[in-house]
Amino acid sequence: MDPAVAAPSRFLSALKGERQSPPPIWLMRQAGRYLPEYRALRAKAKTFLDFCYRPALAAEATLQPIRRFGFDAAILFSDILVVPDALGQRVSFEEAQGPRLEGIRTEADFSRLREVLDLEALAPVLETIDRARAALPDIPLIGFCGAPWTVASYMVAGRGTPDQAPARLLAYRSPDLFQLLIDRLVDASADYLSRQLGAGADVVQIFDSWAGVLPPAEFARWCVAPIRAIVERVRERRPHAPIIAFPRGAATRLKEFADIEGLWAVGLDTTIEAAAAAQQLPERFALQGNLDPLVLLAGGRRLDEATDRVLQDFAPRAHIFNLGHGVLPETPVEHVERLVRRVRRARG
Amino acid sequence: MDPAVAAPSRFLSALKGERQSPPPIWLMRQAGRYLPEYRALRAKAKTFLDFCYRPALAAEATLQPIRRFGFDAAILFSDILVVPDALGQRVSFEEAQGPRLEGIRTEADFSRLREVLDLEALAPVLETIDRARAALPDIPLIGFCGAPWTVASYMVAGRGTPDQAPARLLAYRSPDLFQLLIDRLVDASADYLSRQLGAGADVVQIFDSWAGVLPPAEFARWCVAPIRAIVERVRERRPHAPIIAFPRGAATRLKEFADIEGLWAVGLDTTIEAAAAAQQLPERFALQGNLDPLVLLAGGRRLDEATDRVLQDFAPRAHIFNLGHGVLPETPVEHVERLVRRVRRARG
Repeated sequence: MDPAVAAPSRFLSALKGERQSPPPIWLMRQAGRYLPEYRALRAKAKTFLDFCYRPALAAEATLQPIRRFGFDAAILFSDILVVPDALGQRVSFEEAQGPRLEGIRTEADFSRLREVLDLEALAPVLETIDRARAALPDIPLIGFCGAPWTVASYMVAGRGTPDQAPARLLAYRSPDLFQLLIDRLVDASADYLSRQLGAGADVVQIFDSWAGVLPPAEFARWCVAPIRAIVERVRERRPHAPIIAFPRGAATRLKEFADIEGLWAVGLDTTIEAAAAAQQLPERFALQGNLDPLVLLAGGRRLDEATDRVLQDFAPRAHIFNLGHGVLPETPVEHVERLVRRVRRARG
Repeated sequence: MDPAVAAPSRFLSALKGERQSPPPIWLMRQAGRYLPEYRALRAKAKTFLDFCYRPALAAEATLQPIRRFGFDAAILFSDILVVPDALGQRVSFEEAQGPRLEGIRTEADFSRLREVLDLEALAPVLETIDRARAALPDIPLIGFCGAPWTVASYMVAGRGTPDQAPARLLAYRSPDLFQLLIDRLVDASADYLSRQLGAGADVVQIFDSWAGVLPPAEFARWCVAPIRAIVERVRERRPHAPIIAFPRGAATRLKEFADIEGLWAVGLDTTIEAAAAAQQLPERFALQGNLDPLVLLAGGRRLDEATDRVLQDFAPRAHIFNLGHGVLPETPVEHVERLVRRVRRARG
């Protein structure tokens, strides 16, 4: 990789709203199962959570894609469910089945949660950040958490669900209880992100992967308001930390993020046109996205065409090249190489 | 029910772009498992497809919700997968598992499809329409089909999938083959809808339940273009037939339907604000939707509030009250009664 192109300023400059040509690039789930070196590393830990909580392994997973592809940013290797775990709701990952938690449905269930994060439980994550930061060349490190709505959808259902129906139902039937859960997650997430920044993260991203299913009133209450609250609180403690929100499926509701002070960039899923996003978010926002992970998996001429289209469509704005969702485990490594080469060759 | 309120003109007038106060109401999947009389009827047929293909049973299922709730429109009881079935791709429904088909992945698979619909296979559906039409009071009857993209997603995967990845991948890897499949479905669907109108359907709706997952270029090619082609062809044969499209998840891309001549109304899912839909679709379009099926399941004060919000938000436009997706099987019948009463009481 050309070190001039991968210089740290590119990603941070784009976050400040400055157009870069070519745009900086990193990929959601760039550390993960599609990499053979990741699979070898993963085999050293018994469970997925154990893997996340072993700083030597998690830091190495964080660094692997940087070494291989020279991305413009590294992202902490971890999972959004370490937050419920550190709030005392036991989380486990069953192979090929995804996460399992004891679902929260009643006030009694909620009352068993800790009021604040168990910092001892999260210490390994902060140590991972410290190690990765020290080992990284001049590359920004992104920390992250799940947004309250998305994390709550797992905490209520006790597992991943295709439509988040259990959490949506609880929010309709017991809005006061659901609000308590969201508030608890706002507190915990703001604290957690601030600590990540303190430990060496340069930027943090808030993942609201399931925002898209919410009707307008619920979207405002359960997606936008909690993210706004987290950004405000992190900003009190770390006024200059760049924060990215990824409200997947926000579509026509992206505009609701436009007035959040302290939010620097918005991640876009694959379904939105660049122009429709740009129209809703003022120039000060960097736009991050939004190649289809499936076209990266498919590869070939279609991948080139889709890459060029993303580059062209986002060219008028400060753009951070990314996928619209995470890298799929079946993705051939060569396709990622091909993508990075093509983006790096682009000149706007 | 007040027969003056349920008069046939209300639904058809709204389709013509005329505001009605209160708006007409019908619900997607208003005939279905949430009704005890439906479950009793369903028990008379061995398989779900057998049920769809027995005119006496399917016509009765069509009429049941009209008798109970006095909706402003009836919708044919059938399934979108009768089209692949009539194209020679064997379809079966396994209890609690959904549809199963032999997936189409190669040109050889595709070549086994019939070129035109097996009219003998579809004769029972047309007879169902004839029977329901004859038995209905002055209530419009809606026929329907699945949109090519949504039907193709089942034909390729061989089953329902959470993200339609198999069809999206085939479309990326073999766009020419996928185009052939879509074209075959355009031909078949236009023919099928025209025949439904000939058999007594007053209106037809095209369901594109999985439109929302497609990135912009793919949305234009696989969702909008095929629906446009179907509307044009139906219009050649039935120039005055009202046609509704339901591109679920179209969000910022609803505007792409704005210039389809012969399209009278657009169905909206739960996630879009009325204003964002109204902005994209000219006044001549009726807007149909978009109460959350989960709030109908939840019931109570939340249902009333959400109902009022939909009524209020859509009041500036010709509006057909509906859900944003189908009635859920667990929905209490009393909640549907409560909804219909509240909508009928509304005055704009």
